[in-house]
Amino acid sequence: MTIPDSRFPASGFSATDHALMARALRLAERGAYTTRPNPMVGCVIARGDEVVGEGWHQRAGGPHAEVFALRAAGERARGATAYVTLEPCAHHGRTPPCVDALVDSGVARVVAALRDPFLTVNGAGFDRLRAAGIDVAFGLLEAQARELDRGFLSRIERGRPWLRVKLAMSLDGRTALGNGESKWITGEAARADVQRWRARAGAILTGSGTVLADDPRLTARVPDADIAPPLRVVLDRHLRTPAAANLLDGSVPTLCFHAASATPDARFARVECEPLPQGTGGLSLAVALEHLAARDIGEVQVEAGPTLAGALFAQGLVDELLLYVAPVLLGSDARALLALPPLTDMADRWRLRMVDERRVGDDWRVRCLTA
Amino acid sequence: MTIPDSRFPASGFSATDHALMARALRLAERGAYTTRPNPMVGCVIARGDEVVGEGWHQRAGGPHAEVFALRAAGERARGATAYVTLEPCAHHGRTPPCVDALVDSGVARVVAALRDPFLTVNGAGFDRLRAAGIDVAFGLLEAQARELDRGFLSRIERGRPWLRVKLAMSLDGRTALGNGESKWITGEAARADVQRWRARAGAILTGSGTVLADDPRLTARVPDADIAPPLRVVLDRHLRTPAAANLLDGSVPTLCFHAASATPDARFARVECEPLPQGTGGLSLAVALEHLAARDIGEVQVEAGPTLAGALFAQGLVDELLLYVAPVLLGSDARALLALPPLTDMADRWRLRMVDERRVGDDWRVRCLTA
Repeated sequence: MTIPDSRFPASGFSATDHALMARALRLAERGAYTTRPNPMVGCVIARGDEVVGEGWHQRAGGPHAEVFALRAAGERARGATAYVTLEPCAHHGRTPPCVDALVDSGVARVVAALRDPFLTVNGAGFDRLRAAGIDVAFGLLEAQARELDRGFLSRIERGRPWLRVKLAMSLDGRTALGNGESKWITGEAARADVQRWRARAGAILTGSGTVLADDPRLTARVPDADIAPPLRVVLDRHLRTPAAANLLDGSVPTLCFHAASATPDARFARVECEPLPQGTGGLSLAVALEHLAARDIGEVQVEAGPTLAGALFAQGLVDELLLYVAPVLLGSDARALLALPPLTDMADRWRLRMVDERRVGDDWRVRCLTA
Repeated sequence: MTIPDSRFPASGFSATDHALMARALRLAERGAYTTRPNPMVGCVIARGDEVVGEGWHQRAGGPHAEVFALRAAGERARGATAYVTLEPCAHHGRTPPCVDALVDSGVARVVAALRDPFLTVNGAGFDRLRAAGIDVAFGLLEAQARELDRGFLSRIERGRPWLRVKLAMSLDGRTALGNGESKWITGEAARADVQRWRARAGAILTGSGTVLADDPRLTARVPDADIAPPLRVVLDRHLRTPAAANLLDGSVPTLCFHAASATPDARFARVECEPLPQGTGGLSLAVALEHLAARDIGEVQVEAGPTLAGALFAQGLVDELLLYVAPVLLGSDARALLALPPLTDMADRWRLRMVDERRVGDDWRVRCLTA
């Protein structure tokens, strides 16, 4: 028998292992609107294929997934397997380390999807469990766990948030009429779907052009859901946002990035303002994103016009495109989806990868990744 | 008991009836590339749920679906039910009437999906069967049968072909770079799929702009398939098509519509030429389509640029949009999908109905209907 090494994932998981980890991932997802800035984590305690306890991380500062699951399992945790989507924490944060709770519970085996890249964990949790005689394996459904917590992982591993650009267009790739009219290209179901994607983001980013044209509220509204409100962020170099704009109403935390040369006045009394250095063709988008990551924001949803969305694509800062397509035609006089630098060679086109497409009401939704 | 009336469809079909008619529809589809200008028709002969014979119309001039199915059934047709996707013919065409063959076979019941709108049939087939003591019902899976033979029905009922516009674009609704480069936006699987849609069309329509830019062949190439070659049709008002163009090579029947003021020269020796009156902004598209219907063409596939495709949409002549979307971005400098008259009110947008969407290779395909 070989000694497992906490640096490498195990293989040879059973069908039961897969099913229970899949269950833990679904549980983790229930925290999507509330765990920020913490990752979503789910936990299932099982004896064989009998689930004796389950839980998920519900809110930053509250108990971790393992604690809920162990509480539910009680004495039945003894000798059981704990399936957890992320490596259990080994440090004292706002709550005591989960590895201690697991050791105390008497579980015989811990299976994790993902090693926690967070510096104070990063294998230490696994090591502590093994030192207590618990069998540890990880790497089961790792890709799914990475996808679930892509915002958290992007912030920790890359120092910038995962950037999702949401766009809505007609079948012929237009977002608004030539005269600017843009309301309700897509239907009600698509608009409700957008709210759910907003609700899982740590921040919603827009530009001053969109504020001036559409006066969006950029709040996440999902019926009957508890949501930690995403930070509203506007890139407003010259501080053009009008005093009556919804974004300045102080109803939820809001951040305004502006040029160092502009000085916020009384209009901005209820929002936070942050100067940014100049970047390519405007404020530095890269610095803005670093700033958001430093504030523990993992996922950013961009809801902006063709200029800002195009600039983010052109600068390689976009990770995900969330595109709603309405079955209507607006014609070539209508407004383009994205402003991108002209191409002269088809080989230079921006390539994406479709990962998910489905009908949402009468519209079609496609999700693409850039890498 | 009420006496069935051949003018009204029956109701109360059994699950077996549905399953066997569905089977007959799938059989009919096998003739998609070859039955033109005849409709696709399938036939299943069954005793209860036991299939004793089946067939489909393979080629105009050849035996009808019923004949193949009755041949296969032989004596076992006696007392059986014949499922046929279209009302059996009652007239002597290129083959003897199918109603005679059905009566002679001794089938006890005939179930049809669709009444044949063709004037010489149109209920007469049902009447002749009933007169011979056969139980007749129709209207089972009628919508599916109408969809299958939409080209044939459009030509008979509306006097113009069913018009399908095929377009391929990037995710941001662009068909070519600003410099005109357009080859291979979509992948190989999508291009192979286009060939199958071409193969079921009676004609492929393009404009002289596309001929000059891309020199398409517009032939239907499907590996290992027998295809009745679709008529190639080019709208070339001023007869600009160059002598070396693939469309003028005489390899398959080709038709060139031109203005009465232009006179075809030696370049057009191997193709047919037809003058058209002037219409809105060019040759009359409506007259061109009437002309094609009069030549027994049921389905037309349009593979053209934004001008011709846009004009067909703007004039309300498009029935179906076959759109391939590649997961790439080309930017707002690239060429638009459709040239349509500018809209000033979102309420005036062209509305379509998505009927089918799926992944084709790395691309996405959506089919929409305009009504």
